[in-house]
Amino acid sequence: VLFLQMGWGDLGAFGEPSKETPNLDQMAAEGMLFLDFYTANPLCSPSRAALLTGRLPVRNGFYTTNAHARNAYTPQDIVGGIQDSELLLPELLKKAGYINKIIGKWHLGHRPQFHPLKHGFDEWFGSPNCHFGPYDNRELPNIPVYRDWEMIGRYYEDFKIDLKTGEANLTQLYLQEALDFISKQQASQQPFFLYWAIDATHAPVYASKQFLGTSQRGLYGDAVREIDDSIGKILRHLQQLGISENTFVFFTSDNGAALISAPKQGGSNGPFLCGKQTTFEGGMREPAIAWWPGHIPAGGVSHQLGNVMDLFTTSLSLAGLQPPSDRQIDGIDLLPVMLQGKLIDRPIFYYRGNEMMAVRVGLYKAHYWTWSNSWEEYGKGTDFCPGQSVSGVTTHTQEEHTYLPLLFHLGRDPGEKFPLSFASEEYQRAMQWITGIVQQHKDTVVPGEPQLNVCDKAIMNWSPPGCEKLGKCLKAPESDPKKCSWPH
Amino acid sequence: VLFLQMGWGDLGAFGEPSKETPNLDQMAAEGMLFLDFYTANPLCSPSRAALLTGRLPVRNGFYTTNAHARNAYTPQDIVGGIQDSELLLPELLKKAGYINKIIGKWHLGHRPQFHPLKHGFDEWFGSPNCHFGPYDNRELPNIPVYRDWEMIGRYYEDFKIDLKTGEANLTQLYLQEALDFISKQQASQQPFFLYWAIDATHAPVYASKQFLGTSQRGLYGDAVREIDDSIGKILRHLQQLGISENTFVFFTSDNGAALISAPKQGGSNGPFLCGKQTTFEGGMREPAIAWWPGHIPAGGVSHQLGNVMDLFTTSLSLAGLQPPSDRQIDGIDLLPVMLQGKLIDRPIFYYRGNEMMAVRVGLYKAHYWTWSNSWEEYGKGTDFCPGQSVSGVTTHTQEEHTYLPLLFHLGRDPGEKFPLSFASEEYQRAMQWITGIVQQHKDTVVPGEPQLNVCDKAIMNWSPPGCEKLGKCLKAPESDPKKCSWPH
Repeated sequence: VLFLQMGWGDLGAFGEPSKETPNLDQMAAEGMLFLDFYTANPLCSPSRAALLTGRLPVRNGFYTTNAHARNAYTPQDIVGGIQDSELLLPELLKKAGYINKIIGKWHLGHRPQFHPLKHGFDEWFGSPNCHFGPYDNRELPNIPVYRDWEMIGRYYEDFKIDLKTGEANLTQLYLQEALDFISKQQASQQPFFLYWAIDATHAPVYASKQFLGTSQRGLYGDAVREIDDSIGKILRHLQQLGISENTFVFFTSDNGAALISAPKQGGSNGPFLCGKQTTFEGGMREPAIAWWPGHIPAGGVSHQLGNVMDLFTTSLSLAGLQPPSDRQIDGIDLLPVMLQGKLIDRPIFYYRGNEMMAVRVGLYKAHYWTWSNSWEEYGKGTDFCPGQSVSGVTTHTQEEHTYLPLLFHLGRDPGEKFPLSFASEEYQRAMQWITGIVQQHKDTVVPGEPQLNVCDKAIMNWSPPGCEKLGKCLKAPESDPKKCSWPH
Repeated sequence: VLFLQMGWGDLGAFGEPSKETPNLDQMAAEGMLFLDFYTANPLCSPSRAALLTGRLPVRNGFYTTNAHARNAYTPQDIVGGIQDSELLLPELLKKAGYINKIIGKWHLGHRPQFHPLKHGFDEWFGSPNCHFGPYDNRELPNIPVYRDWEMIGRYYEDFKIDLKTGEANLTQLYLQEALDFISKQQASQQPFFLYWAIDATHAPVYASKQFLGTSQRGLYGDAVREIDDSIGKILRHLQQLGISENTFVFFTSDNGAALISAPKQGGSNGPFLCGKQTTFEGGMREPAIAWWPGHIPAGGVSHQLGNVMDLFTTSLSLAGLQPPSDRQIDGIDLLPVMLQGKLIDRPIFYYRGNEMMAVRVGLYKAHYWTWSNSWEEYGKGTDFCPGQSVSGVTTHTQEEHTYLPLLFHLGRDPGEKFPLSFASEEYQRAMQWITGIVQQHKDTVVPGEPQLNVCDKAIMNWSPPGCEKLGKCLKAPESDPKKCSWPH
């Protein structure tokens, strides 16, 4: 599984006007393109938790109840993380003899009990949190980079990222790590699960020297080109080792492109409305490609409504395993879609924190709540929908529409710009269909214990395991737990 | 040449989220995709005049001076049309023994002196104007359909378009006409130029019965599917006749998708700003595919800045002819681009009526004037940029920026949402480059006699040649020439 932060519109195969992703386009030509594939949340940590548990964040605990409908994630001072009661994909795959490796960003909590090797992974090379700030390690610790149980350095100190030139060779390190792991598994003939969850293209955006200045899209495009090149190398490596027909590869993203970083550090959501942080299509519809030569027919294009949570169930199915039956699993098995071209009826739920904001059923999408961000944030220049103000839709107050949802037909209107008339027969018919599905969903949701409510500077990455050997232990301040502040 | 009204984002190969154009996508896979291809004007008639003359509308007369920076075209009451002094592509191709046919909309004037068979075409099946209104032929004549010199019926009367169901078999008629013409030319071994300029997908949108309801995008999508299917049939026909390697085919559009008709009757401009009528990218960047098996390498993607006017010069080059040397020609020969992968430095000028609104040089686009439409029109609901308000850019008054142009980098910011800072070094450097090019251009522009200034109900299609035989002559009112009203 390749899991990054890129927008739906960032790939040539999805219409990016610079067409600079020949390897991903080739992957699509050899595999199946999913045009209606979604993430489980418009933000990184909850999406990653959803992928690995097959469950919506509101169930697995990756949300906040500090305020209504707020995005939350796992910054350095987050107290919560993935609970032992959650069953992660690698834990289950172990039962079928899989060796599991995560390369890149874990993001499911950085305190010792949340360590990925305690949750089913056998190997780890990467960081527990995003690679951003503080950049100097003086007042706050820089993010550590782990190899397995111990940290081996920190971003900006030992793993350089030049914020001025945008140069960093991290994607190359992560690529080499992936190639080596694949070679090792092939040699030992052991089945493996590789979760390649690299940091790029998250801001601050970086690329290796040989890619700097090579794109028509600036630094962000350089980073995309490097990722594209890396994925090409991974796929060719599988082919050269002769295991491509035994290896299922899926490429997708954890949230829409962050338009707030546009244009220099931000990507493209193609024709869709807004970006990361929102429950409009730009926030949650993702590029997605399935690749499995000899099994998935080349050049396929699917309109199946898919979700990152499906990768949980589909991966289990590939390993001959059943999903857990003692809990609600939201992911579905996509094998019939990929191998037999089936279409499975299923809704997509768009959550923001503790609130179901919208639902998609067929080509209809009903918004029960609309919000981009507050007037206060917007007034300070934070805009999740730059140049895309749609009256009554991209609202700056939380607008409730539960009694008369805003309805869009995503086929005729992928940009969510023209709500259907409430009085139309089409509206009545569609809402009748949707209402039943939403009711059924709400009846089954038992919210998990929210993990993203409490923050405490004392639990930051001051002294990760291994810091002594490196002389990189820092002194933590006294514990002072507080409600985390989630402004949007 | 296939010349239609579709948006950049309407094809699967350009990222349309329904991916319903398998034949055009296949054409692109077998040929070359142009990602930076432009029309010469954000409106139909001037674009068509530009394609056939290789010259900007401001030179060939397809513009108005009734008011500043106004879009104008050739409605039924237009007095002007293509002048005899202009040399059209078919006139020139005749010298190399070509048989020239136009199928579809002529749009270069409907009075007798402007007839396509007087300007180089040998055959015509289609209409002089758009297929819209008046729909009843009582107060005003419906648009006639011609076969060669004479009309053979009228839209809505003899050539049915059901405005309620959207059913019309016109695209099938135009397809059959194309296939027959190609067969005939192949049989007689005569070189030919076919200008397939069908009416669809212009509003009111229609499709044949077998395509109605087949798209995820509604009626517009049905029409796109029918066009896609037709183009597939034309290309397969060329292959079956064994002349595909001797036939150069180019697909493009005369203006961006009309967002004012969205979502039910309007297409998609992908990630670009606004649509038809505007000089933003959505109004003038077009889908474009060149196809010539055995010559143009399959799967090519070009960033060459191209323009519909290049089809004039390129077609002459293919026929071994030189463009006229007694006048300024704006089109360039794209053969080196298509056959040798060259990139030719050239600017793109964005005109609206008599004003150069913007220019693109490399990846930079400088706006010298911005305007979407007037507050008055906008207040009445006419919106060329629905859901895409960009402060200071999609202005509702004509804003002059000639002393400090608004500059965008279309690689980082294809949506024209983030103007570069005037104070930046990048701005200074880019504008220095652009200023010289604009100055040079302005020095060479000798405006043609404007053809779109005068309207007169008396010259409408009351009694086209052939009307007597059909009993379809209508009585014209007395002549009353007036300045045409061009509100935007």
